[in-house]
Amino acid sequence: MTDRLKSLEWKNNVLYLLDQRKLPQKQEYLACTDYKEAAQAIRTLAVRGAPAIGITAAYAMVLAVLAFTARGLSGESLRHAFYAAGEVLEQARPTAVNLSWAVREMEKTFDSAEDDKRCETLTRRAMAMEEEDKQLCHSMAVHGADLFSGKKNLTILTHCNTGTLATAGTGTALGVIRELFRRGQLSAVYADETRPVLQGARLTASELRKEGIPSILICDDMAALVMKTKKIDAIIVGADRIAANGDTANKIGTYGLAILAAYHHIPLYVAAPFSTFDFSIPSGNHIVIEERNPDEIRYVGNTQIAPADMPVFNPAFDITPHTLISGIITERGVISHPDKDSVANYERSISHG
Amino acid sequence: MTDRLKSLEWKNNVLYLLDQRKLPQKQEYLACTDYKEAAQAIRTLAVRGAPAIGITAAYAMVLAVLAFTARGLSGESLRHAFYAAGEVLEQARPTAVNLSWAVREMEKTFDSAEDDKRCETLTRRAMAMEEEDKQLCHSMAVHGADLFSGKKNLTILTHCNTGTLATAGTGTALGVIRELFRRGQLSAVYADETRPVLQGARLTASELRKEGIPSILICDDMAALVMKTKKIDAIIVGADRIAANGDTANKIGTYGLAILAAYHHIPLYVAAPFSTFDFSIPSGNHIVIEERNPDEIRYVGNTQIAPADMPVFNPAFDITPHTLISGIITERGVISHPDKDSVANYERSISHG
Repeated sequence: MTDRLKSLEWKNNVLYLLDQRKLPQKQEYLACTDYKEAAQAIRTLAVRGAPAIGITAAYAMVLAVLAFTARGLSGESLRHAFYAAGEVLEQARPTAVNLSWAVREMEKTFDSAEDDKRCETLTRRAMAMEEEDKQLCHSMAVHGADLFSGKKNLTILTHCNTGTLATAGTGTALGVIRELFRRGQLSAVYADETRPVLQGARLTASELRKEGIPSILICDDMAALVMKTKKIDAIIVGADRIAANGDTANKIGTYGLAILAAYHHIPLYVAAPFSTFDFSIPSGNHIVIEERNPDEIRYVGNTQIAPADMPVFNPAFDITPHTLISGIITERGVISHPDKDSVANYERSISHG
Repeated sequence: MTDRLKSLEWKNNVLYLLDQRKLPQKQEYLACTDYKEAAQAIRTLAVRGAPAIGITAAYAMVLAVLAFTARGLSGESLRHAFYAAGEVLEQARPTAVNLSWAVREMEKTFDSAEDDKRCETLTRRAMAMEEEDKQLCHSMAVHGADLFSGKKNLTILTHCNTGTLATAGTGTALGVIRELFRRGQLSAVYADETRPVLQGARLTASELRKEGIPSILICDDMAALVMKTKKIDAIIVGADRIAANGDTANKIGTYGLAILAAYHHIPLYVAAPFSTFDFSIPSGNHIVIEERNPDEIRYVGNTQIAPADMPVFNPAFDITPHTLISGIITERGVISHPDKDSVANYERSISHG
């Protein structure tokens, strides 16, 4: 198997994060021994991708408890410090629901662990989350690829990065695309560059190129022409948060792609595991959209591309209404034409299944 | 009046071109005394914008005839060299119809001029074209702004650069927006950054900021969210070539914007003068789309943003079908819901009017 780029690695109580801000030029790892370093890595997009930041937060909470224990904290003061660390991590990226989910999981684990086995129990929980994510990616890839069974020479368009750099496994949307390639059904992937942070150009292109998956990079404003002229069979994207009716928050640009896909009669699939769903919010209208630093738009690397004082609108996400989504590819199968009822069925199948 | 950025200036037989590749960091002029320098400036986007490159080509042909005459060419050999120079200029940007139009005009002027007044006659024709363009911009601005009469606090979205940097006057689409600002009807302009060459971020933002026109820069993949949430009243864009049925070739991304506009029930207007129409082509299907250097996508300035060997699709234009265009703003008024018949009427009104 070809070597793959990996987003994170836990080794001897150190969390190694591939610094994705430096790709594609450099492959450098940040060695985090302090949970605040991990929070900063999440905040600055050194690590990104909803599942990857969830697992990063889980390991960061292990780092926190290791440090607090070494400092002699115990009992309520340890618990207080641990929950405060979770709060810091959770605030690093407000939209990604996996992050909150991972913090909650670690808090539960903390509260139920025996005092003298706390570090070990928390470490095991974080490692299990990493392993679960690999399994989820695999299951999504299989269910997603099965949607295209019998079809050949597929051309897929994707947005942002949803691969090994966004997860602990082969990815969500990109995991499905990898599986189609493995099955010999893939002709090419068109990858949107995904401004402003360029996850498509820097990360997805790096992953695809490294593994020899046939791929073509485009700018985001070329997607409509590509849909019209390049025989696109499907658009597959990831998700950062999915509401109870299937409305999906994902990387800025997804909503526009969904409209363009509908216009060209191309199906749009979202690939996302259970942890991405937020059943407590009835629709996308309740999702707060994170706005990021204007300089992400005004500068690319060190190159200034706009007047330094130019006002900027820099939303990190948009919401795609469920009516524009052909299906949500999950670890349990595909929710076709997602809506309130089909998403509720899915929740029941996981919670009680 | 506020100082404006100017795309070109003709002075003492030298053509000064503002090197737009260096904006927004530097304001530097190329002093062209050789038509090949001007052709290179067109090819490398130092000067761009359909009307501006037409006028640049016209002055470049003056530079050509000055040089050839100084070298002692005359008669058929002068004519041959002059037409060859026209050919070089025309090939510098294959899609822009204004460029061919300007070259044809200068050829006609050459052929009809008296031998001893050739340089002078050609110079006068190029200067007249520059002056005509100013007038056209003014007329389009007035007709375009009249579309919104009685309305206040308008929010307009635009793509690419269609202003003083793209024309000899106040611009096509941006001329209309300037006029709305002058009339006190404008609340804000959203400017797409327009990848890959970033004409929106580098040029439109510079123009708007310099003149204090309230404006907000966004990435291209944010346009759908902006249309949904920011009360956009209209989208106004320019054009590089318009077919006899109103199908419009314009900067890559326009076709996608038109689909998004239709989805959000927002009118999309194209602002373009007579010289942009190519009545010889029945529809957009006959327009050849220029593909540009892949490194325009792989690099932003000196920053590498994708693997160096990443395959790239880099179309410079796309075609917006006339069915998605609410109106074409011309120097004679607005062609509403453009189609074969309304465009033919417009042609008759100009050719025989």
